[in-house]
Amino acid sequence: MPIQKSDADEEKEELDICFVGREIDMLNEPDDLKKHKDEGQWDFVAFPLTKLPPCLEQDGKDLPSEYDLAPSTDYFRQSDQKDRAGEDVGVVSSWISTDSNRVSEEFKNYSADALREETDLAAFWGTYACILPTPDSIDCDRYAAAVNEVLRTQSTQQCRLWLRIPFTVDPQHFDGGLGPQVPAASPPSSPAPPAAAAAAESRHPMEDVPAPANGAAAASASFSNLSDEDNEKERRRVLEQGCTSEDTYDGWHIFKKVKDKCGNPQHLFVALVLTKKLPPFAYLDRWRSERVAAVIIPLECFVENSHGCPQLPYPHTQVVHHFLRQKAKVLLQIAVAPSKDVRNFERYRYCIQKLWDEIKKLNVVERAGHRDQNCLQPPLQPLAENLESGVYSVFETDSVKYARYREALKLALEAKVEERTGQKGPLVLMVVGAGRGPLVTACILAIKEVKMRTEDVKLVAIEKNPNAVITLTDKKQMEANCPFWSKLEIISSDMRQNVNLEKQADIMVSELLGSFGDNELSPECLDGAQRLLKEDGVSIPHRSVSYACPVSSTKLWTEAKKLGEKFLETPLVVYIHSAYFPAVQGAQPVFTFEHYPNKDIDPSNAHNRRHTDVDFTITIDAVVHGIAGFFSADLYGSVAISIVKETYSTDMASWWPIFFPIKGPIFVEKGDKITFSIWRCDDKHYVWYEWLLTHEGKSTDRHNKGGRGHKMGK
Amino acid sequence: MPIQKSDADEEKEELDICFVGREIDMLNEPDDLKKHKDEGQWDFVAFPLTKLPPCLEQDGKDLPSEYDLAPSTDYFRQSDQKDRAGEDVGVVSSWISTDSNRVSEEFKNYSADALREETDLAAFWGTYACILPTPDSIDCDRYAAAVNEVLRTQSTQQCRLWLRIPFTVDPQHFDGGLGPQVPAASPPSSPAPPAAAAAAESRHPMEDVPAPANGAAAASASFSNLSDEDNEKERRRVLEQGCTSEDTYDGWHIFKKVKDKCGNPQHLFVALVLTKKLPPFAYLDRWRSERVAAVIIPLECFVENSHGCPQLPYPHTQVVHHFLRQKAKVLLQIAVAPSKDVRNFERYRYCIQKLWDEIKKLNVVERAGHRDQNCLQPPLQPLAENLESGVYSVFETDSVKYARYREALKLALEAKVEERTGQKGPLVLMVVGAGRGPLVTACILAIKEVKMRTEDVKLVAIEKNPNAVITLTDKKQMEANCPFWSKLEIISSDMRQNVNLEKQADIMVSELLGSFGDNELSPECLDGAQRLLKEDGVSIPHRSVSYACPVSSTKLWTEAKKLGEKFLETPLVVYIHSAYFPAVQGAQPVFTFEHYPNKDIDPSNAHNRRHTDVDFTITIDAVVHGIAGFFSADLYGSVAISIVKETYSTDMASWWPIFFPIKGPIFVEKGDKITFSIWRCDDKHYVWYEWLLTHEGKSTDRHNKGGRGHKMGK
Repeated sequence: MPIQKSDADEEKEELDICFVGREIDMLNEPDDLKKHKDEGQWDFVAFPLTKLPPCLEQDGKDLPSEYDLAPSTDYFRQSDQKDRAGEDVGVVSSWISTDSNRVSEEFKNYSADALREETDLAAFWGTYACILPTPDSIDCDRYAAAVNEVLRTQSTQQCRLWLRIPFTVDPQHFDGGLGPQVPAASPPSSPAPPAAAAAAESRHPMEDVPAPANGAAAASASFSNLSDEDNEKERRRVLEQGCTSEDTYDGWHIFKKVKDKCGNPQHLFVALVLTKKLPPFAYLDRWRSERVAAVIIPLECFVENSHGCPQLPYPHTQVVHHFLRQKAKVLLQIAVAPSKDVRNFERYRYCIQKLWDEIKKLNVVERAGHRDQNCLQPPLQPLAENLESGVYSVFETDSVKYARYREALKLALEAKVEERTGQKGPLVLMVVGAGRGPLVTACILAIKEVKMRTEDVKLVAIEKNPNAVITLTDKKQMEANCPFWSKLEIISSDMRQNVNLEKQADIMVSELLGSFGDNELSPECLDGAQRLLKEDGVSIPHRSVSYACPVSSTKLWTEAKKLGEKFLETPLVVYIHSAYFPAVQGAQPVFTFEHYPNKDIDPSNAHNRRHTDVDFTITIDAVVHGIAGFFSADLYGSVAISIVKETYSTDMASWWPIFFPIKGPIFVEKGDKITFSIWRCDDKHYVWYEWLLTHEGKSTDRHNKGGRGHKMGK
Repeated sequence: MPIQKSDADEEKEELDICFVGREIDMLNEPDDLKKHKDEGQWDFVAFPLTKLPPCLEQDGKDLPSEYDLAPSTDYFRQSDQKDRAGEDVGVVSSWISTDSNRVSEEFKNYSADALREETDLAAFWGTYACILPTPDSIDCDRYAAAVNEVLRTQSTQQCRLWLRIPFTVDPQHFDGGLGPQVPAASPPSSPAPPAAAAAAESRHPMEDVPAPANGAAAASASFSNLSDEDNEKERRRVLEQGCTSEDTYDGWHIFKKVKDKCGNPQHLFVALVLTKKLPPFAYLDRWRSERVAAVIIPLECFVENSHGCPQLPYPHTQVVHHFLRQKAKVLLQIAVAPSKDVRNFERYRYCIQKLWDEIKKLNVVERAGHRDQNCLQPPLQPLAENLESGVYSVFETDSVKYARYREALKLALEAKVEERTGQKGPLVLMVVGAGRGPLVTACILAIKEVKMRTEDVKLVAIEKNPNAVITLTDKKQMEANCPFWSKLEIISSDMRQNVNLEKQADIMVSELLGSFGDNELSPECLDGAQRLLKEDGVSIPHRSVSYACPVSSTKLWTEAKKLGEKFLETPLVVYIHSAYFPAVQGAQPVFTFEHYPNKDIDPSNAHNRRHTDVDFTITIDAVVHGIAGFFSADLYGSVAISIVKETYSTDMASWWPIFFPIKGPIFVEKGDKITFSIWRCDDKHYVWYEWLLTHEGKSTDRHNKGGRGHKMGK
């Protein structure tokens, strides 16, 4: 009975489903599986694929030459309800030890055989996924070879492989954590395990996540509820710590090793194990980039509340919450209670249900983001292609954006009225790129607020999309009772073409901005409209600035690649969820465009070409998949709109960020410098960006050369 | 309220939905749209996008220089329920005449403008689709140019373009069918319209489809319920008729013209108009290949039944039934009745509902085909990759196949028992590639039927997939009460490898066949197993033959291309629905493989290489997209299994046909010869097909050279 979520608003939306399962240690009888499933109404169970081989029941000394697989159950017969088959998850034996120095060569081979054969069995049964044991060494060559062999021989309908990886590996797992049944290599490897463990402990200080500080906005952007300033401090603190890539107990490095050795295959995921103590937030954050298919919560992570009920500590809930939103499954690692009290399970399950319920409470923008997460789309080209009515309709619902415009217009009108004292004739207020009229509405509201009379102001709307003009004209007719609407002059034309106007504008207002500021060609459009603005006229907005920061996201990069190689040279608009930003500096300014009356526009457009290099310092070992882009725009006075995280206009929903992918992800180490170089190029018909990244003196190809991946039609 | 269909069996299946809409001639008021929608509970309406321009209300003589679009409604405001927006269909003005010689140059330009602007309006409103008028000439350059312009400037979110194409165009539409408002060119073009119409009538004899003959099986394969023999006669008759590609009134040629001129764009579909009289079935059949998004049924197609209720003639229902299964929408062209009796509409809607209900009555195989239609998949490679339990499980449900095997086994056992009279020791019956055991079950049933005793027979099963062996062993244990099961010898090995057997087999039975017979490498496997068969032993099957015939299917070809260029060089398994077979000969044999005891197998495998050329004669102008492949296999005596249409084993569900695409579709004319050349190649590790088509002395590339698209691992 999966927990289903239907959205609060009226629109149909795909149901999101949260799957909560339980991991079973051992099946005593083949028939146990069904019983376990029914207990506590789990959506799925993770069950051991095989029985412990007889040779390991004792000391494991007399290994047979071949692994003799003994299935724990007849899964296919067990899952009699056919539509349930394929939800459950098979667990490969935990005694498997393929690479540790502590075990014999013979046992390593035996283990690698077992890993392959058990995974094959899960694929044969068609389980939804198969959980592989945590590699027992950072040098996991044999482990990766076995995984590769499985991936090579399985048919395309194979099940997913979930690597069980804890945030931080218990040093004992590598050094001395072998079960009694696993034979140690003789002679045992030299350094005493406790010492190694102690050393590891000091190299990688485990600690609780800092206590929450302020606000839910930050929470949605990071596991840590720190303010942005604190976040930067925290990033710097992590950077200055002694931990380096030699940090062999960090789960992320282990996962990366296996992934790299296997060539980053499509079917390989993480089943991320929560630890009682969580690592510093930069270490947590880094998992946002990976394909986390499941979060495994061991019993020890739960605490008791005042009623004696289990609950997760707040930092843990933050982590689970993030991955739930990313559609990961939750797997509770809870042994059968001695009393076999079913309600006992239900209380744990309820903890996750409560978390899921919170997702329903997301506000409109967060919900839209939840829906659109990681969904890539090439930027709109409203200049080259006419927008659809439905697109206008979505944009028009952004009350935050238009409230800011109204505020800016009010201030501008007040200033202009004072400035024009004594001058004759109405003030000319011109909306360029009026669409279906939302800025006209904002203008009229501002005019009313400053109490101007009909004869004080002449309102003009210019729009190039003939069908939007039809709707705008229709709206004018419907609003005939409003004197400002009824006197509105509608001009159906491109603002850059010859427009016959009696008067130039005192105030020109536009909303031509894209996710990266100028990427919908506001500079070119507004240049073309400058002759319609008086010499002392005001442009709203008068400045736009684009921002960038390095981003790590296996998900976004993989999705872009899936679209085709070309899309790795295309800026893509996306609500970035499965990602994190591994730079100390956060988002840095890239290009600035100023819009003031300027009669001497260079027809060659040379003044709109740009080139910038932006430097970043990396906080933590990471893989950089590209650059995330944002913008802010100054409307008038101190009124601005922004999608840059640090200055974000809360609840503004019109823009998601932009993602500039790079063709090959780059592995960067803590403290490395990385430079983002970007060019804004143009020819007679198009404008496009070219970009590259430089790391340790080595540059990537220059991406999107000549606009081969993507260009914007003028 | 779309008619929903949930499947009769227990498995979850995607809901199929049948959409029935009504076309509205004219909106008197903008508000009429909602009223029309509610009438008769239509799933959608097709409504005119614009009002008749004032200049055309009279004689259309004073055309303005530009088309002045006047929307018929404010669609976006009308569709207040947001989730309904996007279901309706906008209709572009029917007076548009872009290419006919009968209208003035000025009017042609005016028409082309209107076509573009109205389509833009539909895209702006975001209607589900937009119906374009039937081109008014077979030389429709200007029409295609306007469509191209629309496709070029629309954003990617544009609506679909549905070309309204009748099976046969009324000659008046080209020659004299202009409305009173459309100005004729002066001087009018020379030949008198009625004469032209009469000439057309004689060139393309309209006639009713021949009366149904026998059975529903043929119906699902063709619009005509003729027997296959009759079908071939009918194909020959069409071929011998005088109609040629000069047949300018054939709707298919017109659609092809527009499609070709526009480069076959993704967003272009047919809205196929039923005519009261239907053309010969080869003309109907040809539409199976095209992307028919909707079937438009004019009122005149309906007849009255004895209760005075409207119903469709049987041939018409066959056509609608086919396209319903192909997920086309149905659009009824029914004017508002003078009485405005809502129930009147409901009666027409009910006709379609009844047809849809019949789809629910499909048998298991037909339902599986309905679900899988046009869904392409690379062939299974059970030799190179181990199959999943779920795949075995699906195959095992094919009762028809195993009944045939049982019958063949029974006959073979009887013959062997007689032959061996006096010989000592049990008869050895060997299943090679036993999987989870369905052929073992068939063997045991046959043994019981011929009343052999346990000591008379030794049953051996060889299987290479270790996980299938686990299930088979498990089954043996469960069937311990059956003496044949409990004495079964299970050998976990590849049949080609050294198997230690006391005795050779008297009968060897296998089911290693693929959709194209030998494509799962049964020849190579059975060669390897020959040494396990006595010199006078029997192989079941003892022969397999592959078959091929040219196929026309825009749908299959487009889907293959979508998967990637490589897939145009890959044989693909598919239930072929949206297709037809334009060759007189039907399916012709390609490769034959015989399986008799043969101790002297050439280790080079040269004897399994093949090359064949197969000739076909084309019945009707068509576009060939590739070759469809089938197989038949002789099991024993006269017992055979077949997926060749002419000899199809009714209700056998294990195999869909195979599709060999070609990289570029070929236009062929009635009476043309076309030759399919195919090679079966191999190297040390792989077997693969290479193929090409030769038409009028010109050959395509040799496809899949060296197995670059697809090869089967030995």
